[in-house]
Amino acid sequence: MDHEPQQPPMIPAVLRAELMAAVGPGNVKVAAEELHVYECDGLTIDTAVPGAVVFVHSTEQVVKVVKACAAAQQPFVARGAGTGLSGGAVALNNAVVIELARMNRILELDLENRVALVEPGVVNLRLSEACRSEGLHYAPDPSSQGSCTIGGNVAENSGGPHTLKLGVTVNHVLGLEVVLPDGRVVNLGGPLPGLPGYDLTGLFVGSEGTFGIATKVWVKLTPNPEAVKTLLAVFPSIDAASRAVSAIIARGIVPAALELIDQQVIRAVEEWLHLGFPTEAGAVLLIELDGLRDGLDLLAGRVMDACRSSDCLDVRAAKDDAERLLLWKARKQAFGAVGRLSPSYYVQDGVIPRSKLPEVLAKIQAAGRKHGLTTANVFHAGDGNLHPLILFDERKPEEVERALKCNDEVLAAVVEAGGMLSGEHGIGMEKLKFMPQVFSEDDLEGMRRVREAFDPNYLANPGKAIPARRCWEVKGHKPPEAEAAALPPMRKA
Amino acid sequence: MDHEPQQPPMIPAVLRAELMAAVGPGNVKVAAEELHVYECDGLTIDTAVPGAVVFVHSTEQVVKVVKACAAAQQPFVARGAGTGLSGGAVALNNAVVIELARMNRILELDLENRVALVEPGVVNLRLSEACRSEGLHYAPDPSSQGSCTIGGNVAENSGGPHTLKLGVTVNHVLGLEVVLPDGRVVNLGGPLPGLPGYDLTGLFVGSEGTFGIATKVWVKLTPNPEAVKTLLAVFPSIDAASRAVSAIIARGIVPAALELIDQQVIRAVEEWLHLGFPTEAGAVLLIELDGLRDGLDLLAGRVMDACRSSDCLDVRAAKDDAERLLLWKARKQAFGAVGRLSPSYYVQDGVIPRSKLPEVLAKIQAAGRKHGLTTANVFHAGDGNLHPLILFDERKPEEVERALKCNDEVLAAVVEAGGMLSGEHGIGMEKLKFMPQVFSEDDLEGMRRVREAFDPNYLANPGKAIPARRCWEVKGHKPPEAEAAALPPMRKA
Repeated sequence: MDHEPQQPPMIPAVLRAELMAAVGPGNVKVAAEELHVYECDGLTIDTAVPGAVVFVHSTEQVVKVVKACAAAQQPFVARGAGTGLSGGAVALNNAVVIELARMNRILELDLENRVALVEPGVVNLRLSEACRSEGLHYAPDPSSQGSCTIGGNVAENSGGPHTLKLGVTVNHVLGLEVVLPDGRVVNLGGPLPGLPGYDLTGLFVGSEGTFGIATKVWVKLTPNPEAVKTLLAVFPSIDAASRAVSAIIARGIVPAALELIDQQVIRAVEEWLHLGFPTEAGAVLLIELDGLRDGLDLLAGRVMDACRSSDCLDVRAAKDDAERLLLWKARKQAFGAVGRLSPSYYVQDGVIPRSKLPEVLAKIQAAGRKHGLTTANVFHAGDGNLHPLILFDERKPEEVERALKCNDEVLAAVVEAGGMLSGEHGIGMEKLKFMPQVFSEDDLEGMRRVREAFDPNYLANPGKAIPARRCWEVKGHKPPEAEAAALPPMRKA
Repeated sequence: MDHEPQQPPMIPAVLRAELMAAVGPGNVKVAAEELHVYECDGLTIDTAVPGAVVFVHSTEQVVKVVKACAAAQQPFVARGAGTGLSGGAVALNNAVVIELARMNRILELDLENRVALVEPGVVNLRLSEACRSEGLHYAPDPSSQGSCTIGGNVAENSGGPHTLKLGVTVNHVLGLEVVLPDGRVVNLGGPLPGLPGYDLTGLFVGSEGTFGIATKVWVKLTPNPEAVKTLLAVFPSIDAASRAVSAIIARGIVPAALELIDQQVIRAVEEWLHLGFPTEAGAVLLIELDGLRDGLDLLAGRVMDACRSSDCLDVRAAKDDAERLLLWKARKQAFGAVGRLSPSYYVQDGVIPRSKLPEVLAKIQAAGRKHGLTTANVFHAGDGNLHPLILFDERKPEEVERALKCNDEVLAAVVEAGGMLSGEHGIGMEKLKFMPQVFSEDDLEGMRRVREAFDPNYLANPGKAIPARRCWEVKGHKPPEAEAAALPPMRKA
């Protein structure tokens, strides 16, 4: 064919044969047009064409595939639904993509002890649906929960709106079966919260695929609250809404969710979905309270007081479930709505002290103005987890450049405020260069040594999570002994 | 003097001189009679006399002491209040004890963002007292909270009665300054919950001093509940009380605390403190509920229903704060009361699925009967975290032997029930031999490799937390290269 896409670098024929023997020829993709489908994840800015894509169906197959890669010194990267927002699933260095979406069985639901054993390809929301009739759910709820997988959540330590009260993925994972980069299978933790030995489960969660591949996951199930009340509070400005956030928390109330949506996002959502949101508002807060039915009205009254004391223009509770779901629809579709305003957007997820919200939000707006770009905000205000969106047109290279500069300034503002680079999306490829700003070389060297305990040859998702010591990581090969010996001694902090 | 205690093996003179130069001669103890004071911790069964005890007052001093030990290849062990229950602070291999109790400053209290920065020697309860007037507290509350230190809590990932609702130490530590075993200082995490890079903070918590020494700790502060209600429910048997635990949890209620006290302990407490506990009861549950004032009576009603549906003989709420404190006094002094029954006792802290409580408690009783020993139970029933006490007389070697056998059977029952060896006391020395029962050799080898990323020479608290690969660990020295090369290749799981 004349118009065949450019052929990516191929993997060695021996490796290809071994992969086909491991999972069957129909489960190994090596044709260029098939590989291009896997060139990016939800970040979309960073791309790389994999050397192959392999669909696996069992731990045994993962072991065979990983061993074949290890023997060939071929890097590999695990992938679930590819909804990640930091480029974590991008196949650098011609890596083999190990696609786990078909390992999607719920292996055990122990309702009495409230734990489940799942394969990594189980879609987040499917697990909650599977135990809904028993009054339980899986708590971490990323906006992408209808498509993202538990395995991907484990890799990135994903959060969601309900993180404020219930914690992120690491707080809900009890144990893991992991295939290490040399093909050995180890068990970390188990179905119970007891932690004999080191907490390698907690270490593995959020390691972005650089320690190996989780093939089974023990998770906690959380009782559904007896009652839920969702409030919408309307503010003249982001500043006033930020003050209300502090006022609510200061009253000792921990809402189930506490989300801030700014004017840009309100307008985008309203234009698209016509939900009746106040488009003149500077910002709104979406506040969810849950618990026993009887205490809830009182709690809602206190939250309303806190909002009114912060110059809120209006605050009201959803009158029924239908209205409640509408409010959440606005929140969960916010990114989609922003996508209608602009061909592309860049989203960050830095965490800052709640007290610094007004200051940092002002800096984000200023950075956008400086670079002639629109910025928008919709985020987990209760735990200071920002999601600044920078709108741009990826078809205009000059605009992409401005967006990246604007993004750098946004992250710099987060770091200046004593903040952390990522609350829930991970470092991936995109935030690597900022790591030396928040960690000393000794800190990073400590991380590398831990990584090397699992993956001495840097084959598992190279080029992610922590900055390389030397260019040999991005090549995905072990350094020659001479080069290793020449590494600088660790510096004193 | 004639009656001088036997002189322990001394540390090299050069090292002694360096330690004295680092912290001042008055802060280095090397006399036998002084060293014997530090021969054990709260476990008391396992003892070893340290090579020296060094009192440190700053991170800089810790760095100097650790570097001096590293240069001399001398093992060291950090120590706080010495209240640990698994032998974690015992100085094996003539180790130098680095005593952190004098690093006891609260360096920062950020009330708005609800975080504190403390030195490791801060006593747990002192931190809660320091922020009480601001309506905050530090949540993990071991029974020893009046004397144990935050640094020790970090080492052992300590829990307490309020773990059920609020989580163990790892859920409340945000960041650490750590002196690594080669004297470098690294920062893990920070004052915010964002987690860029690997969660080394979570890994360090519970590592029992084998990765280095925490010299600063960022912790979360938790709002005090607006109201608290404490119930005492009386049952004819442990079985009935266990069923009530499941019934409460099944109703979707998460009490702040849910403690089970059996007849042996009730009688011991009553005999000592005369609090009016029902000495004919088979077991009692101490149930604490907290939250907003208005929902609380309803919640208490539901808990009482759950108890009554499980054959409870009587259930009532403490009528005022004084009565509430009495109930808690009984719980927190339970170990002390048992100490009056018997010269010694052995306490375990395995975690089992709640559904297995009756079965495992019956096995504990049977093991005691078989070995002619009294067993008693007072534990965190809500999260299945047992604290079986085995009573014995340490002056009778034959009885000690029976107690150890009984203990082995208790732990075996925990493992058989799919349980974990430790919920909050750590593995220390005492549970090392059980680790191969719950972890494969590959799992353990993974742990060793992580340890070696921090402590390649096994100088930091050798002989704790994970079983040694070879006898060279217990000698506290690096293996000769030849021996290292001869280590068995990792086996496939």
